[in-house]
Amino acid sequence: MEIVIIGSGNVAAILGRKFKAAGHTILQVVSRNASAASALAYEWNTESANYMSLLNHRADVYIIAVSDNVIHEIIQSLRLPGKVVAHTAGSVNKDILKKVTAHYGVFYPLQSLRKETDHLPEIPFFYEGSDDKTSKTLESLALSVSPGFVAKADSEERTRLHIAAVIVNNFVNHLYALAEDYCKKEGLDFHQLIPLIEETALRLKTTSPSQTMTGPAIRNDEETIQKHLALLKNYPKLQELYKLMTESIRGN
Amino acid sequence: MEIVIIGSGNVAAILGRKFKAAGHTILQVVSRNASAASALAYEWNTESANYMSLLNHRADVYIIAVSDNVIHEIIQSLRLPGKVVAHTAGSVNKDILKKVTAHYGVFYPLQSLRKETDHLPEIPFFYEGSDDKTSKTLESLALSVSPGFVAKADSEERTRLHIAAVIVNNFVNHLYALAEDYCKKEGLDFHQLIPLIEETALRLKTTSPSQTMTGPAIRNDEETIQKHLALLKNYPKLQELYKLMTESIRGN
Repeated sequence: MEIVIIGSGNVAAILGRKFKAAGHTILQVVSRNASAASALAYEWNTESANYMSLLNHRADVYIIAVSDNVIHEIIQSLRLPGKVVAHTAGSVNKDILKKVTAHYGVFYPLQSLRKETDHLPEIPFFYEGSDDKTSKTLESLALSVSPGFVAKADSEERTRLHIAAVIVNNFVNHLYALAEDYCKKEGLDFHQLIPLIEETALRLKTTSPSQTMTGPAIRNDEETIQKHLALLKNYPKLQELYKLMTESIRGN
Repeated sequence: MEIVIIGSGNVAAILGRKFKAAGHTILQVVSRNASAASALAYEWNTESANYMSLLNHRADVYIIAVSDNVIHEIIQSLRLPGKVVAHTAGSVNKDILKKVTAHYGVFYPLQSLRKETDHLPEIPFFYEGSDDKTSKTLESLALSVSPGFVAKADSEERTRLHIAAVIVNNFVNHLYALAEDYCKKEGLDFHQLIPLIEETALRLKTTSPSQTMTGPAIRNDEETIQKHLALLKNYPKLQELYKLMTESIRGN
C-alpha cells in the first residue's frame, strides 16, 4: 500500500519501519517537528513535510500517529474524502475522524514503542473501521506487518486491553524500577536479576502464570516474610507494596 | 569435574544439564524419589541411587539440591572428609554443612528453574565457601556453566538478593496471573499481551526501568485512572493493587 504517516514520534517511527519492512511504500512523513520528520524521511528514502497544508493526497492510507491530545488539532482542517484514515490512539474514539473521510478507523498497536531500539518488536494490532472498506484495509495492513497478532476491537474492548496493559507493563515496570533502586542502595547488581526477569516473562508462552507461583507468600512462609519486611524498613514504598502483594498472593 | 548430585527436583535437573553441557561428568544422582532419579540418570547416562548409604565417594564435588527443609535430614549421617560439598539453598546458612566436610559452601542459582523446559536459561550463580579451596572450586564450577554471571555472596547478601528476586519474579508473576484472570473473564486473549510483556523485560538490558515509565499514573491522567478503577469494580483484588501501584508510581 501507499501510506502517509502523520507524526514523527515513537509510534510513527516504529510503524513506519514495520511498513517498510513489509514492502509498503511510505509516500510522506508529516510532522511539525521538522528534524524528527526529516530524520524518518531520510531513513525511509521518502519526503517529509512540516505543514498539513503540504500533505500528499495520493496515498491509499493515512496513519495519524500523534499524542492523544494532538489528534483534535491535527484534523481541524484535514479533509481526505475517499481515503482510509486511522489514528493509533487506543483510548480515543474512532468518531473523532468522522469529518475527515467516510473511511475512518483506529489502528492500535498494543506495544510499548520506542524509536531508539535495535530491534523491531512483535506488535499485536487492534483495528476498527467505520465501514467494511476501512476494516478490510486496516486488517490487511495489520496482517502484513504482524501475522497472527491481529484482532478487531471497539472502543470498550480497547479500554479493557489498556487496563490489562497498564498492569503487565506500567505496574510491572514500576516493580522493576523499585527493585533496581533497592539493588543500587544495597550494593547489589540489578543486572544479575535480568535472567530471572526474562525467564519469568518467556515462560508465559507455554505456562499459565497461575501455575508457576513460587516464593514465601504462596507457601505461607511467615518467617521469611517477616524477615524481608524488617529488612525493607528503609524502603517504605517497597515495604508497603511487599505487604499488599503478599496479602494478595495469599488470598488466592 | 566429577560431580554427584543429591536431589532430583527442578534445581537438580537443570544444574545437572548445565554441568553436562559444560563437559563435566555426573558420577551419580542420589534421591529418595526413585523414578525421578533414574529418569535423570538415564538422561545423563549415569547411575542413580535411592539411599544415601549407596553414595559414590569418588567425586570431586557434591551438590545438594533439595528443598530447604530436607537438607538437615539428608546430612544427618553424611560424612565426606576432603570433598567439596555445597547446597543450593539461597536462604540456608552454609554452616549447616559443617560436620560433613571441612570444604563446604553454598552454590546458589538465582533463577526460577523448572525441569519441564525446552531451553536452559541463563543462571547467575552466587557462591560462598568455608575455605579457599571450596571457594575456588565453586567459583570455577559456576564460571564453567555461566560465564559472566558469577559472584561471591554471603548469607546476608543472598537474603537481599532473595528480596529483590521476590519482587521481580513472585510479585511480577502475580500481576501476570491477575491480568490473565482479568482477560479470561473479560473475553480478551491474554496471549495478545505477551509481546508487550517481553518487550518490557528485554528493554532492561539497555535501559533503566526508571527511564521508561509510561501510562496514566506517571502522567497523572486522573480521568483514565478513575475510568479504569470503575471498570475494575468486579475485581476487588486488582482494584486495590491498581490504587496502590498508582499511588506508588505517582509518589516517585
